[in-house]
Amino acid sequence: MSELTARPSGRAPDALRALRFTRRFTKHAEGSVLVAMGDTQVLCTASVVDKVPPHKKGSGEGWVTAEYGMLPRSTHTRSDREAARGKQSGRTQEIQRLIGRSLRAVVDLKKLGERTLHIDCDVLQADGGTRCASICGAYVAVADAVSWLVREGALVETPLVDSVAAVSVGVYQGQPVLDLDYLEDSACDTDMNVVMTGSGGIVEVQGTAEGVAFSRTTLEALLDLATAGIAQISAEQVRTLGQP
Amino acid sequence: MSELTARPSGRAPDALRALRFTRRFTKHAEGSVLVAMGDTQVLCTASVVDKVPPHKKGSGEGWVTAEYGMLPRSTHTRSDREAARGKQSGRTQEIQRLIGRSLRAVVDLKKLGERTLHIDCDVLQADGGTRCASICGAYVAVADAVSWLVREGALVETPLVDSVAAVSVGVYQGQPVLDLDYLEDSACDTDMNVVMTGSGGIVEVQGTAEGVAFSRTTLEALLDLATAGIAQISAEQVRTLGQP
Amino acid sequence: MSELTARPSGRAPDALRALRFTRRFTKHAEGSVLVAMGDTQVLCTASVVDKVPPHKKGSGEGWVTAEYGMLPRSTHTRSDREAARGKQSGRTQEIQRLIGRSLRAVVDLKKLGERTLHIDCDVLQADGGTRCASICGAYVAVADAVSWLVREGALVETPLVDSVAAVSVGVYQGQPVLDLDYLEDSACDTDMNVVMTGSGGIVEVQGTAEGVAFSRTTLEALLDLATAGIAQISAEQVRTLGQP
Amino acid sequence: MSELTARPSGRAPDALRALRFTRRFTKHAEGSVLVAMGDTQVLCTASVVDKVPPHKKGSGEGWVTAEYGMLPRSTHTRSDREAARGKQSGRTQEIQRLIGRSLRAVVDLKKLGERTLHIDCDVLQADGGTRCASICGAYVAVADAVSWLVREGALVETPLVDSVAAVSVGVYQGQPVLDLDYLEDSACDTDMNVVMTGSGGIVEVQGTAEGVAFSRTTLEALLDLATAGIAQISAEQVRTLGQP
Amino acid sequence: MSELTARPSGRAPDALRALRFTRRFTKHAEGSVLVAMGDTQVLCTASVVDKVPPHKKGSGEGWVTAEYGMLPRSTHTRSDREAARGKQSGRTQEIQRLIGRSLRAVVDLKKLGERTLHIDCDVLQADGGTRCASICGAYVAVADAVSWLVREGALVETPLVDSVAAVSVGVYQGQPVLDLDYLEDSACDTDMNVVMTGSGGIVEVQGTAEGVAFSRTTLEALLDLATAGIAQISAEQVRTLGQP
Amino acid sequence: MSELTARPSGRAPDALRALRFTRRFTKHAEGSVLVAMGDTQVLCTASVVDKVPPHKKGSGEGWVTAEYGMLPRSTHTRSDREAARGKQSGRTQEIQRLIGRSLRAVVDLKKLGERTLHIDCDVLQADGGTRCASICGAYVAVADAVSWLVREGALVETPLVDSVAAVSVGVYQGQPVLDLDYLEDSACDTDMNVVMTGSGGIVEVQGTAEGVAFSRTTLEALLDLATAGIAQISAEQVRTLGQP
Repeated sequence: MSELTARPSGRAPDALRALRFTRRFTKHAEGSVLVAMGDTQVLCTASVVDKVPPHKKGSGEGWVTAEYGMLPRSTHTRSDREAARGKQSGRTQEIQRLIGRSLRAVVDLKKLGERTLHIDCDVLQADGGTRCASICGAYVAVADAVSWLVREGALVETPLVDSVAAVSVGVYQGQPVLDLDYLEDSACDTDMNVVMTGSGGIVEVQGTAEGVAFSRTTLEALLDLATAGIAQISAEQVRTLGQP
Repeated sequence: MSELTARPSGRAPDALRALRFTRRFTKHAEGSVLVAMGDTQVLCTASVVDKVPPHKKGSGEGWVTAEYGMLPRSTHTRSDREAARGKQSGRTQEIQRLIGRSLRAVVDLKKLGERTLHIDCDVLQADGGTRCASICGAYVAVADAVSWLVREGALVETPLVDSVAAVSVGVYQGQPVLDLDYLEDSACDTDMNVVMTGSGGIVEVQGTAEGVAFSRTTLEALLDLATAGIAQISAEQVRTLGQP
Repeated sequence: MSELTARPSGRAPDALRALRFTRRFTKHAEGSVLVAMGDTQVLCTASVVDKVPPHKKGSGEGWVTAEYGMLPRSTHTRSDREAARGKQSGRTQEIQRLIGRSLRAVVDLKKLGERTLHIDCDVLQADGGTRCASICGAYVAVADAVSWLVREGALVETPLVDSVAAVSVGVYQGQPVLDLDYLEDSACDTDMNVVMTGSGGIVEVQGTAEGVAFSRTTLEALLDLATAGIAQISAEQVRTLGQP
Repeated sequence: MSELTARPSGRAPDALRALRFTRRFTKHAEGSVLVAMGDTQVLCTASVVDKVPPHKKGSGEGWVTAEYGMLPRSTHTRSDREAARGKQSGRTQEIQRLIGRSLRAVVDLKKLGERTLHIDCDVLQADGGTRCASICGAYVAVADAVSWLVREGALVETPLVDSVAAVSVGVYQGQPVLDLDYLEDSACDTDMNVVMTGSGGIVEVQGTAEGVAFSRTTLEALLDLATAGIAQISAEQVRTLGQP
Repeated sequence: MSELTARPSGRAPDALRALRFTRRFTKHAEGSVLVAMGDTQVLCTASVVDKVPPHKKGSGEGWVTAEYGMLPRSTHTRSDREAARGKQSGRTQEIQRLIGRSLRAVVDLKKLGERTLHIDCDVLQADGGTRCASICGAYVAVADAVSWLVREGALVETPLVDSVAAVSVGVYQGQPVLDLDYLEDSACDTDMNVVMTGSGGIVEVQGTAEGVAFSRTTLEALLDLATAGIAQISAEQVRTLGQP
Repeated sequence: MSELTARPSGRAPDALRALRFTRRFTKHAEGSVLVAMGDTQVLCTASVVDKVPPHKKGSGEGWVTAEYGMLPRSTHTRSDREAARGKQSGRTQEIQRLIGRSLRAVVDLKKLGERTLHIDCDVLQADGGTRCASICGAYVAVADAVSWLVREGALVETPLVDSVAAVSVGVYQGQPVLDLDYLEDSACDTDMNVVMTGSGGIVEVQGTAEGVAFSRTTLEALLDLATAGIAQISAEQVRTLGQP
């Protein structure tokens, strides 16, 4: 790729930020993971709740849902606390719906049985890509919560049919780059979030051009970058979960 | 494409539903368009408002924003009225943010000057694809509102830099199809909304697999279908706006 | 009546605006009527819902309720969307309570059985008299919904005991006039909404003098005008419903 | 009138309940009146506030507005507290809008100057007719607040152009009766609230037949009763305000 | 104590304001008491409600809960109506939680049986110490409601295990004083509310130094004052309840 | 003290839990501290905001305010997210008001100048005593934010007049104990939170007996325990802040 554009971080266009999963970050949740993608840090918990939403009652199937929030000073300048304002922003709702769909794509709800996996993703520190980091961390938390269910004898086999991860890609100063940080995110024209399974299936593609429309060629280049990036993240998820 | 699968409507996989724009549907708004994509009918108005949101004050630039709603009985069974429930759902907010971004992609905010184009998309009758129909109709309403501004002497040249349209595509019974109606939408695995400009640039791609993840090949086939469909819609927008 | 005052529309003091009911305006609702009283256009739907509010549970009786809304740009200048503001205004609640009471006056709730007729009146275009138009249109929508229930075999006989209609009257430039449009409504001192049954019974009288108090003589003149106007509207409702 | 029907209270059909105004009931408000109409007791305060709503800013005119509430246990069984539920009911809003309109009918807003008279009517004990009692008491409180403004030298002449009072009338067991108490109110078919000035002008007429529609003859009988009743209330207002 | 500081009211440092309980102030509630501590007047009602909150269902135990509100013009200048603003302030919630805890300290919930005593404290006129007056009045109202339950045969013995009362104390111009009125409350550094039972047990102590921190010695002096003051209030509660 | 009662943690009655402050826990806030009191972990940030609330505008004085929240799964079982429910609980508001008052007691608002220190306390893991831990951590975060203001040249001298810390005390199985953890907190009769300055002044005392009232003797014993505990915490705050 081009040597002309330097990313603010000095990373190569196809380089991920440092990725780290800290499992059992807090003690009460069945799954609790602090995920760091560079300076973005999200606490992801997966809670096992013994009831399901109305549309699943009596179905024998379970549910997976997610909520998302940013601590008021996770950002460069302080943002309003959504609980104090009395409502969640459209952005928050959009993100938590995305996290929920992404995780449901890899959970067999029949095998889960009539219970809910309630995911909470709370951003402690934001530096771009919080929704993607949330999905990556939520998967590890869900995997831990599912292992707990198996260990407790509540499930005989795992309802997880695959792993799932997400990454952002975008065009920064004319060049497609992987895993945007805040500086790149603020300056880039095209921004795309891609969610894929560990086996390479696409779960969600959300590409946006707030400024100038982009070409099919650009879209393809971004998808290539994302595919490679997600493969690396998936491998790290496997490695993390392989540890005791 | 495959002859094996019949669409409920009998349409060919790459066939749009009947598309009709009725301009000046109501008399107060600067732009007022009833758009029908098959049985989906959305009233789109564009209102010229002489103020801008705080982040644009004193900038000399304007703003384009959108709100979306469904009449309670636009759907098969009655839905709650959001005004009565006291809040807009996450889905509503997601859609109105999408409409706003899509229209901003074709409006030069500097040329618009310090005023707001406020778009309202209200679904009178729903049969799938309401967000795409909203974008298609909103563009025609905005074009009419902009012409009104020029006619009134408030603008010397149009701030529109392109047209914009949207269509849904999805995989129905294993086959990629264009412009899903409600029956297809409820039954399909993969659902994608594509927003493009009249000159073929991509503004937004939102593909979702709530069930099974999909392949890159499927993604490409869906994008091909959408590109062809949007070209037809763009042509119809031009034709409509060419009439007095 | 006096020849001195010309109404803005040129109508005679006792002349209604053009009245038109378009039945089956949308396809999902059991009753769906677009009513036009001059330039005021309201979409009235009647939905059959198979449950009743708590105070009717187990009573064997049904319920009739109504909700009302104005599309944000149904008015001369854009109004806030109530769903976005997060609450319905006092005016909206007052109107929807009035519509509900008016329709309940002509429905035998015992004969309706334990189900709800949920009326939605959404103003597409406003030019004065939206609450009266809503009541007139709602009656036609309810009649169609009731016919549907009979046709489906859910009811053996109609629970409708009469028809109901409404009209506004007021004093414009010293002269009592029938069916105020927006220009008259904004300028008039006394404003009265009258709801009556087809057989001439009074269901609701709401007369207001925000400016100067009015005399009993004026009240009588306004009631005479309203009685004659409602007789014409009732006849048109019968005519409309007589068509297939 | 008929001797056949006994009112629960034993009153004659045209008899008011005992009416009592207690001025200066609380010490902070510029006008503070406890009004008792039989067992209905409402605390009405009029507060002078040195600002006006946006639509009056810079107009040189003032404003009169009202709020209404019921203490949770003013009623037979405890009602929810509106502040705890987080919103005012439709009924509450309807009533406070009525009180505001009624008082504005007798205040010359120009003479009031750019200030607001903010009326609060809080029901301490309810036994029917709380909105009418509120209007009667609010007038006395407003008169006291206006006298305070004159005494303080803020106004040189009173902006009050008339007095205003209200009473309910209805058909109880086939007979028109004046000033309904709770037992009559719950049992009656037709209910009408009439607001008139001291000089006999009509400010507001609100007649409702939730059950069976009523005739013009009944309407006239009810208006006659109300007119006589309001004359008595107006006289009592004059008497009360004549005391130091 | 020091003769140097004069309290605005001329009271001695350890003197309570005039205290008066008016029982049966309104007629619907099972207990209804107007309590006056000087110019602070609070209407306290205790309602017997035949259900319990979810955490008590099926437990055989009852519950005691409280709500608090200030009439908008109970204060020197008009405050917003919480029902109109759509939420209770933090201060309101803090106070009503305190009243509830204070009363639960003297009610045996087992003996109360599965019903709720719902206390409402509404401030008609405020002059400092409204939360303490509310607790004092609420106890008398609860005692009356409990007597009603016994009289009706719903309870065989009283669930009241003690009486409860509250008073404020504070440091005004360097001197500890009892039962602060508004002038003292606004000017004092340290403010403490003490809730005690009739037999002298401490139920709640809430001392606050918004300005300068205070010493343990001051704390002890304030507790001594409060203890003596509450003993007088308790005696008055006994006296009041001893009357028929 | 008695040897008879063993605390669940095995601690002596007067022993604090392990206390640890981690400064600069996140990177954006001017002060950011993770405080751990045993298993209770709270992220406290202090943000410098260049505006003040209305009552301080133009006064030359600054303000200190606080918000508090618990992550949904900081607790043993998942709690609702307040942002999703749309309002903060009474408990949350009570706690954040307490934190604000406590910090204001040690900040000279004049010296702070017209800016706000906005404190956010978010509980990552709860094991009792979260409000006290919040106050302890908030002080360290505020001290760091103030140092930043001095370092940046915005302030020439510190507006901090003292340090502040808090601890809970209570009666567990008849014995007064210091720094309650969750097991003790759930089981104890009397619970008291004490806030004191580093120099030993009392800022706030909040003692509650939801069950049985407690004696003055118990109160004194609890205050002694709290005083000793806070002295240790204050020393640790000094030690922490002494490090670079």
